[in-house]
Amino acid sequence: MEPIKPYKKGFDYSYTLGAFPTIELIKGHPETVKGVYIHSTFTDKDNIIKLCKLNNITVLENDKLISKLSDKENCFVIGIFEKYENTLDADKSHIILVNPSNMGNLGTIIRTAVGMGIYDIGLITPCADIYNPKTIRSSMGAFFKLRHQHFTSFEEYRNQYQNHDVFTFMLNGSNTLEIQNCPKTQLFSLVFGNEATGLDDSFLEVGTSICIPQSPDVDSLNITIAVGIGAFIFTHQTK
Amino acid sequence: MEPIKPYKKGFDYSYTLGAFPTIELIKGHPETVKGVYIHSTFTDKDNIIKLCKLNNITVLENDKLISKLSDKENCFVIGIFEKYENTLDADKSHIILVNPSNMGNLGTIIRTAVGMGIYDIGLITPCADIYNPKTIRSSMGAFFKLRHQHFTSFEEYRNQYQNHDVFTFMLNGSNTLEIQNCPKTQLFSLVFGNEATGLDDSFLEVGTSICIPQSPDVDSLNITIAVGIGAFIFTHQTK
Repeated sequence: MEPIKPYKKGFDYSYTLGAFPTIELIKGHPETVKGVYIHSTFTDKDNIIKLCKLNNITVLENDKLISKLSDKENCFVIGIFEKYENTLDADKSHIILVNPSNMGNLGTIIRTAVGMGIYDIGLITPCADIYNPKTIRSSMGAFFKLRHQHFTSFEEYRNQYQNHDVFTFMLNGSNTLEIQNCPKTQLFSLVFGNEATGLDDSFLEVGTSICIPQSPDVDSLNITIAVGIGAFIFTHQTK
Repeated sequence: MEPIKPYKKGFDYSYTLGAFPTIELIKGHPETVKGVYIHSTFTDKDNIIKLCKLNNITVLENDKLISKLSDKENCFVIGIFEKYENTLDADKSHIILVNPSNMGNLGTIIRTAVGMGIYDIGLITPCADIYNPKTIRSSMGAFFKLRHQHFTSFEEYRNQYQNHDVFTFMLNGSNTLEIQNCPKTQLFSLVFGNEATGLDDSFLEVGTSICIPQSPDVDSLNITIAVGIGAFIFTHQTK
């Protein structure tokens, strides 16, 4: 393997921090794995070594590299992988994030989406780096269960996926999200905006705009919470 | 004012970082405010100064102190306040957090609860420091809209508040959270466990245990998301 350096956005590789996401990586995308590093004090080596052998993946012990790449002390396994991009499944529902800026939020949204059974996330650029080890760590390995695709604009996304019913989540949305009267749809795109700015008013026109009701005592909900509530209601209403 | 130092848990004071939470502090709990510091380059001084004057609060310019207390560059206002503890409102629904460990999560849960119209949060110790400036920052000022009370055990909470219908959120809960069949109750306590360990099995017996349905592709939902979904369903079902 070439020398591995602390992650930067321009790299063509990234890495998992920790045994659990590394196992998810190997199970989900073995063809992208360039190698796995384990710490000499790691107590559960056998499982990882077996899994790597099965998939023809090199395993090396390298304490120095692990402490260089990880800022946490309890990281014993790192998996290096080549970045990959998918196309979304046209027959499945999507979550579309317009310019999300925070990697921790992005990871939490990935974990939430997969938890709700939504495996396709579209990202409108500019956006937080989905490959950054911080994003992957906060997804708790769910990143490797997901199809993700970048688009330079919402129009570009919409041109490729024309059959979805689009719902845009906005504080000034025309419809209130209600438990009893959630729109019934089998194939939907739930669209959420940037943490600070939300979706601009042009998104009032691209589908059905929805406001999650909230008390006047908060400015807005955290984007991860809005995605969680929206995804839960839509995935459970349509069954 | 006495000299102000970077926050430590044992202090009898804490502080807000930023103009927005400082305004929420002054509006919500003016009697606790020991003073407000503003940065010489802050462009919206007049509002803060007026609000402080109205409430007999000292305002001082102190760039050095602000940079000492804040790790972010865009912090221009800091409000020092004496810690306070409330008692929960016995006639309102509660969220009870058992040993929450992460301050960012705790702040996000506060913001979410207030957003859903739940203004009473009980904390079972040991737990993350609700007064830490990080918690308050991630609550986006919602901390000052809230009643919070600490308890050394769930039993201690329950002895004080005996009329609430208790719902414990657990991966092995006996009931699945459903949109259509959420228990109808006007006065409820929603109970959530620690981020890593959840609620132990003793909580299967203290009320109605509930599992939020999720795909097998995640270990669990983030606690903030679980609170968001649970609080949304319960507050909207019971209207």
